[in-house]
Amino acid sequence: MPASVTHVYRRHIRFADTDAAGVAHFSRLLVIIEEALHDFFQSRGLPILDAATAWPVVSIHADYSSGCRFQDEITVSLSMDKIGTSSLGFSFAAAKADGSACFGGVATLCHIDPALHAPAPIPEKTRNALGAGSV
Amino acid sequence: MPASVTHVYRRHIRFADTDAAGVAHFSRLLVIIEEALHDFFQSRGLPILDAATAWPVVSIHADYSSGCRFQDEITVSLSMDKIGTSSLGFSFAAAKADGSACFGGVATLCHIDPALHAPAPIPEKTRNALGAGSV
Amino acid sequence: MPASVTHVYRRHIRFADTDAAGVAHFSRLLVIIEEALHDFFQSRGLPILDAATAWPVVSIHADYSSGCRFQDEITVSLSMDKIGTSSLGFSFAAAKADGSACFGGVATLCHIDPALHAPAPIPEKTRNALGAGSV
Amino acid sequence: MPASVTHVYRRHIRFADTDAAGVAHFSRLLVIIEEALHDFFQSRGLPILDAATAWPVVSIHADYSSGCRFQDEITVSLSMDKIGTSSLGFSFAAAKADGSACFGGVATLCHIDPALHAPAPIPEKTRNALGAGSV
Repeated sequence: MPASVTHVYRRHIRFADTDAAGVAHFSRLLVIIEEALHDFFQSRGLPILDAATAWPVVSIHADYSSGCRFQDEITVSLSMDKIGTSSLGFSFAAAKADGSACFGGVATLCHIDPALHAPAPIPEKTRNALGAGSV
Repeated sequence: MPASVTHVYRRHIRFADTDAAGVAHFSRLLVIIEEALHDFFQSRGLPILDAATAWPVVSIHADYSSGCRFQDEITVSLSMDKIGTSSLGFSFAAAKADGSACFGGVATLCHIDPALHAPAPIPEKTRNALGAGSV
Repeated sequence: MPASVTHVYRRHIRFADTDAAGVAHFSRLLVIIEEALHDFFQSRGLPILDAATAWPVVSIHADYSSGCRFQDEITVSLSMDKIGTSSLGFSFAAAKADGSACFGGVATLCHIDPALHAPAPIPEKTRNALGAGSV
Repeated sequence: MPASVTHVYRRHIRFADTDAAGVAHFSRLLVIIEEALHDFFQSRGLPILDAATAWPVVSIHADYSSGCRFQDEITVSLSMDKIGTSSLGFSFAAAKADGSACFGGVATLCHIDPALHAPAPIPEKTRNALGAGSV
């Protein structure tokens, strides 16, 4: 596996992302992290939603540095840190023009065995598309 | 069909419903209207989400009277005004302690024919559960 | 006022826009309509959220033609049909690659008088920015 | 500080909480955790949103055990584990009828100094309302 696979995703905070404190709701920033993840998968030609899976988030953690306001541009830097047997681990940092917004990590499952309803090994072609290859 | 079938649903505005203007986002009030609709179906023993349908909203209109703030209790009064061949029509009024929040109407399809991918007639047992009977 | 002022806005359906029926939730399509509206205001150099207002939606209606799926690109065509004393009226049509998604109309207030907590006339410079001028 | 302060909050998964994988979106489960937190504050007579703060989430982590479907009742058990100088730390476990949904922790700031735009010590009366008292 390469030392580091990084992906950058950008979008602005929309009005419906904000809350009555005047900033993006913490849950909406995590939605933006998921968008970054999906953007990464799409950039690798991987299907995101099909009969077997939807790359479910199985673990997430985030620390919030500073509020993001309506129309702020958010830049998410996503690093694929770990390719497990059946899951991927990413770290992320989201920044706005004047500094950090939040940072953390997220893990996602690749493939749910439709018969077993349980995580299945990441298929070889998916590993290859992710730049991980076989070892 | 009875002159009027009315259903009342209440819930508070949650923080994640609000936006940076300090009030519930207009789209979240419509989510509350859908909750009222689902609560009505559930009160009649009707399944809401199954292989054939999810009572999709096919038309909605709303006029907003006054902003709803975090923790305001919203009371939705839903009236089933029309039972069509394949759809239902409702009018709604949402109020908070100090007056009207919004009012409007919503139409929803009952049953999607899985083969035709098109609206199918409302089944007789659903009509009965809705208090509409056959004529 | 010009015969027609039209604005086009595009974005893809994100995973968090979808619901368990497998399509974008009806309320999330209305969020996309609001994004189109804000994009229009921004293209005219108008502030969207300030001390006096946030262009609140005061009325909306929509008819849904066909479900939008995850990753579908939605193209919103927005037409400013009416410039009132204190509000603007728009019609919209949202389409995806294979046909209509939804269409309808939305009205929004420009300016809330901070003292009166009531709609105030649209300022002259806003009318000019909207291409409406004075008559 | 008492050994443990626990609060229980329940609500059903609504349709707008779900996504195209057929389960509650991971971000919406975190919204339910915030609702539990706000319900706890309200049960202690504490204001949640005022001029000085909105109890912003500054850190969150969650592990997801199993998907929650539309209409599932979710029971959140919240434990206040830590009362810091300016923040509170909670652990949470969310369960549905047939087992665990997710578990994790969340930290929130009490009071933002309006002049300094920085966390301020938790006021004594807030500490008392939380059952923490002074030492």
